[in-house]
Amino acid sequence: MTDLPAGLDDLAIETPSWAYANSGTRFKVFAQKGVPRDPFEKIADAAQVHAFTGAAPTVALHIPWDKVSDYSLLAAYAVDRGVRLGAINANVFQDDDYLLGSVTHPDPRIRRKATDHLLECVDIMDATGSRDLKLWFSDGINYPGQDDIRTRQDRLGDALTEVYARLGDDQRILLEYKLFEPAFYVTDVPDWGTSLLHCLALGPKATVCVDTGHHAPGTNIEFIVASLLRAGRLGAFDFNSRFYADDDLMVGAADPFQLFRIMYEVVRGGGLDPSAGVAFMLDQCHNVEPKIQGQIRSVMNVQEATAKALLVDAAALRAAQDGGDVLAANAVLMDAYDTDVRPLLATWREQRGLDADPIAAYKASGYFDEIVAGRVGGTQAGWGA
Amino acid sequence: MTDLPAGLDDLAIETPSWAYANSGTRFKVFAQKGVPRDPFEKIADAAQVHAFTGAAPTVALHIPWDKVSDYSLLAAYAVDRGVRLGAINANVFQDDDYLLGSVTHPDPRIRRKATDHLLECVDIMDATGSRDLKLWFSDGINYPGQDDIRTRQDRLGDALTEVYARLGDDQRILLEYKLFEPAFYVTDVPDWGTSLLHCLALGPKATVCVDTGHHAPGTNIEFIVASLLRAGRLGAFDFNSRFYADDDLMVGAADPFQLFRIMYEVVRGGGLDPSAGVAFMLDQCHNVEPKIQGQIRSVMNVQEATAKALLVDAAALRAAQDGGDVLAANAVLMDAYDTDVRPLLATWREQRGLDADPIAAYKASGYFDEIVAGRVGGTQAGWGA
Amino acid sequence: MTDLPAGLDDLAIETPSWAYANSGTRFKVFAQKGVPRDPFEKIADAAQVHAFTGAAPTVALHIPWDKVSDYSLLAAYAVDRGVRLGAINANVFQDDDYLLGSVTHPDPRIRRKATDHLLECVDIMDATGSRDLKLWFSDGINYPGQDDIRTRQDRLGDALTEVYARLGDDQRILLEYKLFEPAFYVTDVPDWGTSLLHCLALGPKATVCVDTGHHAPGTNIEFIVASLLRAGRLGAFDFNSRFYADDDLMVGAADPFQLFRIMYEVVRGGGLDPSAGVAFMLDQCHNVEPKIQGQIRSVMNVQEATAKALLVDAAALRAAQDGGDVLAANAVLMDAYDTDVRPLLATWREQRGLDADPIAAYKASGYFDEIVAGRVGGTQAGWGA
Amino acid sequence: MTDLPAGLDDLAIETPSWAYANSGTRFKVFAQKGVPRDPFEKIADAAQVHAFTGAAPTVALHIPWDKVSDYSLLAAYAVDRGVRLGAINANVFQDDDYLLGSVTHPDPRIRRKATDHLLECVDIMDATGSRDLKLWFSDGINYPGQDDIRTRQDRLGDALTEVYARLGDDQRILLEYKLFEPAFYVTDVPDWGTSLLHCLALGPKATVCVDTGHHAPGTNIEFIVASLLRAGRLGAFDFNSRFYADDDLMVGAADPFQLFRIMYEVVRGGGLDPSAGVAFMLDQCHNVEPKIQGQIRSVMNVQEATAKALLVDAAALRAAQDGGDVLAANAVLMDAYDTDVRPLLATWREQRGLDADPIAAYKASGYFDEIVAGRVGGTQAGWGA
Repeated sequence: MTDLPAGLDDLAIETPSWAYANSGTRFKVFAQKGVPRDPFEKIADAAQVHAFTGAAPTVALHIPWDKVSDYSLLAAYAVDRGVRLGAINANVFQDDDYLLGSVTHPDPRIRRKATDHLLECVDIMDATGSRDLKLWFSDGINYPGQDDIRTRQDRLGDALTEVYARLGDDQRILLEYKLFEPAFYVTDVPDWGTSLLHCLALGPKATVCVDTGHHAPGTNIEFIVASLLRAGRLGAFDFNSRFYADDDLMVGAADPFQLFRIMYEVVRGGGLDPSAGVAFMLDQCHNVEPKIQGQIRSVMNVQEATAKALLVDAAALRAAQDGGDVLAANAVLMDAYDTDVRPLLATWREQRGLDADPIAAYKASGYFDEIVAGRVGGTQAGWGA
Repeated sequence: MTDLPAGLDDLAIETPSWAYANSGTRFKVFAQKGVPRDPFEKIADAAQVHAFTGAAPTVALHIPWDKVSDYSLLAAYAVDRGVRLGAINANVFQDDDYLLGSVTHPDPRIRRKATDHLLECVDIMDATGSRDLKLWFSDGINYPGQDDIRTRQDRLGDALTEVYARLGDDQRILLEYKLFEPAFYVTDVPDWGTSLLHCLALGPKATVCVDTGHHAPGTNIEFIVASLLRAGRLGAFDFNSRFYADDDLMVGAADPFQLFRIMYEVVRGGGLDPSAGVAFMLDQCHNVEPKIQGQIRSVMNVQEATAKALLVDAAALRAAQDGGDVLAANAVLMDAYDTDVRPLLATWREQRGLDADPIAAYKASGYFDEIVAGRVGGTQAGWGA
Repeated sequence: MTDLPAGLDDLAIETPSWAYANSGTRFKVFAQKGVPRDPFEKIADAAQVHAFTGAAPTVALHIPWDKVSDYSLLAAYAVDRGVRLGAINANVFQDDDYLLGSVTHPDPRIRRKATDHLLECVDIMDATGSRDLKLWFSDGINYPGQDDIRTRQDRLGDALTEVYARLGDDQRILLEYKLFEPAFYVTDVPDWGTSLLHCLALGPKATVCVDTGHHAPGTNIEFIVASLLRAGRLGAFDFNSRFYADDDLMVGAADPFQLFRIMYEVVRGGGLDPSAGVAFMLDQCHNVEPKIQGQIRSVMNVQEATAKALLVDAAALRAAQDGGDVLAANAVLMDAYDTDVRPLLATWREQRGLDADPIAAYKASGYFDEIVAGRVGGTQAGWGA
Repeated sequence: MTDLPAGLDDLAIETPSWAYANSGTRFKVFAQKGVPRDPFEKIADAAQVHAFTGAAPTVALHIPWDKVSDYSLLAAYAVDRGVRLGAINANVFQDDDYLLGSVTHPDPRIRRKATDHLLECVDIMDATGSRDLKLWFSDGINYPGQDDIRTRQDRLGDALTEVYARLGDDQRILLEYKLFEPAFYVTDVPDWGTSLLHCLALGPKATVCVDTGHHAPGTNIEFIVASLLRAGRLGAFDFNSRFYADDDLMVGAADPFQLFRIMYEVVRGGGLDPSAGVAFMLDQCHNVEPKIQGQIRSVMNVQEATAKALLVDAAALRAAQDGGDVLAANAVLMDAYDTDVRPLLATWREQRGLDADPIAAYKASGYFDEIVAGRVGGTQAGWGA
């Protein structure tokens, strides 16, 4: 059997606290059983994902959803469960004041409020020891003329500049972009070009976050990944998959070949090396599937795609490419993709004291029954809380 | 000034009760002021739209959102306000049982429950005197393999057959299709072909409902309209507009030229004639704009597009088409589109005792201040209630 | 090692004569070496694909590109090389008369000419013994108003009716649809709904041809496949792959998981059974890659996807689906997809006296050098000839 | 009647020499009557567009399609006809050497050849006095793995750097981007982000060219326009319109409201001021419509959209935007769009000694009959020559 090349140990995948909470569409949020009721329970669930995969050592927080009075307690709780706190995700889209935007709102009072929230998130980063502030802005407009496109860019730049100045030496901004939703005509940060322009204006501690579900149909995401790595500005991934829009399905579920191509460009561009500073994060909604299982499967999907990317015969590929042999070059890539890496990963897990089959092991652990039985009363966590 | 051709009086636009309630995206429902708290208040708002436009004489209900103990009271209330009850919209997507589908669910108990709701809606139609049962199914699957595509079609056919058999002589099914959302891999009725196949299997009282926001990017909607009129199966429109997906913006706001082309095919295919049985309905979400104003503006947009369509010089168009004069034929259509029909519509309104400017007249009426002041306490209506 | 389930022997893939000729984009047709100069040489190339794969026993012809004075000679030549003549593809898009359409043209003279060509193709079918007449119409309009959408449908229906009446008992029409290109506003047969409507009007000998590159972005092709099989109207596939539009790349190259899902629905719906009458054809343009190799690889890709589809554990899948276990059901499908079937196919080939590696065997055969050396002088075949 | 605000006189629209030649799709190039046979005849046709619109004073050349032995003769001929030579468009996509790319080709010999062509184009600019070198690269790959994405960016950067160094003080590079076609997996300059990154690396004389048909579905083009103006890097437009892909229809034909929104952002961002250096160019293919008429109509469409943009009540718009009045702000924009500006433009033309109806005047001029009669013999110009 082919051996798994080195490199997979470098792959740490951060899971998001909100993936363990209830989520849904605008039509309905279906409540599931055993869902956490507070940030501590979310972290407990995230720790399960790491326990069975060995590859999800950190948990991203979302403020204010994960607001607690003492972050050192939360951090200690995480460590106790075998994980650590990760990126801080700001939320300036759920207050009634943000109907027409947050940092790009026409009203300076609301822009101030939103920027203050971002600054507060940096305070929280200081408390949690987080490196990354992930910024996703739902800001935008629904109707032509509703607000001035360019002025909103200026306002956005102002807010980012203020937040950037507040960052510590080891802290970063990850600026996410998204084509549409919830804004339906203009989104103020719709594409990687816009995000990159702002990052370039800010400085080296601002990098782009690529959410794999946030592009126009037909967009070549691996091209963007290669370009951002070339420009030294790929800060993070928000992984998920989609057939149509921002479906937030399990990464690799809709187009596993695309995920492989993305991970190939990461490997090719040196992005798997921890020194590159690329954060690999999941950002998904498990609307119909069990949440912990969904996260485990997603981590496995990223691992499998990465393992295949690591198997690409770089020398053979380059030789075929340089020789202009289109089909031979494509075949080198496909040979890696067509390989069944599941046995290799099973071995990799066993060598690290993990069960070869994380899903089966998790199911057998009884954890799910335990949380269904134990999490009685209280209010289940969701996007709103 | 050009005179407005006959035909506009045939255009009656039904507004949906839920457009007056709060709505939003999965990220946030922003509450607005003065929002109705029950079906009666929704109808009161809908009556305002008709009062100022003279073109919105009916209101669609959504069950269970608009469930009342006595529909004859609701109907009488409507008449009192100058409007009538319209189509009944079934809802089989918000009960916790429907996590994996309603009439296509793998579990026969849940299919039964969903079908019973549809039958109950026909009971309500009997009570309200409604002609149309509008069926939109959120049914579908998120992951390949989650359920069997074809079996779900069979289940759907079974449910529709049962409901069809229950219809009275003057009642119809309007079967809506939608590409995606809330299902993200397969939607069980994703396109007009699927809807039409089921309608053909059912019989003449089943027709297709075209929601203008429910198509894949690049779909030519007016072609579908022309084809359904040719097949005698265009039952209704759910009007709205979109830049990306099912954005549910005001109809005509995103692409007024498309709306004109659609209305041109309606006129061309005889669909404006009441005997054609085409129902013109709005189905929109006013997430950021005032709701009553949004409906008034939408009605006006449909009227303007229709007026332009009626202005097309049919003889000149046909002559240019038959002569193969591409640019002359296109110019005939564009001449109508480029015409500013607002003065014609102002005159049309004044001739019918309406204010020439419905938005200004509504604003001046004080109704909005009245409902903001009066609707204190209680729970605002939304999609969930 | 897993054994390959029965069924793969039922899979016969027809290659198109024009895939061996030069092709390109509107910007440039790059000539390749060794390209055939007449239909006989195309068939010689197609025979190579069958010789090395054992799965491509027939060759589709395109009229007039493959017009010969005596089709029995061409048929005998094919048999001599180990293959047979397949479907006849009509061409009503390259005569100067067809600037504004063929069977839907405003001028009855040109409609007559186009319909006569289709009838001539049935004559050729009689001579070649072909079962299938594949009809793809480039007909459409570029500008709103250029011609009447509905009238063109009527004209199309008239032409199809005339051709249908001319079919022999064992002959069929395969009616292809395509979203756009070369028409850019309306295509007269843009989607499966339109094709199916015409087929239903014609009768049982008219079925739909699904070209996998002819859909709007986001269209779920396997859903269409399942629906057409359910309706008994899936006549054929034109296989290729695409990232954007009708890219005509090698099937399985852009989204191998999609091809697997399609083949799964074929297997699930009984479409692999020869009695189902589904024709599996390639329709691709090898603009930058060697043509014969491209065809071999494409046949292999379809075989691999089919082998994976055959490996799906149907009982386990159904159990998980019926139990509403979303992730287990998805996992059953993915288990099959993630399997590396290449060793199974190697064995399958060896059992049938073929080389385990068709590409390597073809390369080693010296055929390519032979045609490069031998096909000197004359005019290379292309789309125009 | 509303008066047309100042600003329209600043709008000069460059027409492309190749729009007067034959063009088509990969399926067929339909020859038209009276088509030019050399660059001089193309300029004669372009001069007609200016004669009747007064707004198309320059003609873009395409090298080698418009190669002549003495460019001063061509320039003098243009002046004689009342127009001037405009941008030089390089062509590195039609030589057989460019099968796998030009400046990004794996083979350094071919990269050298391609770069030399670009340098030759600057020589021609020196001869013609052209300011702008428009670079569109068809470079890309069709299959994953075919070549290395990032290495191709490096090669592209090297070629651009060499060409940039060759530019005179008053010369510029306009770097065009395009999502896909003729490359189908990766295009080396697929979006504005990539183009801008290269421009930023080059220096102030490199700017982005926005072709309105080169985006992914759903892309908000006016946002890009606003962003590039804000960044000081909007160099030019290639105008055309599309329903699906790069359809190259007459600008404004597919979505006139979009064209209005684009021109509004141009006006809003100061791009209409000649000092902004934004070049307004047409780049279209008149496959089915008469070419000179098609250009005249296109110029008129841009003028009408610009006139509407100039009519926007900026103060009212800003007031509504600042007040957060979504519908009022949208209404201000729509008021301008809904205005029929054709009478205003008719007056504008008459004031400048032009006919109020350029199309009718052109038709009445007899020019078309003249070129049909006169251009006998020779080879019609097309994309290939």
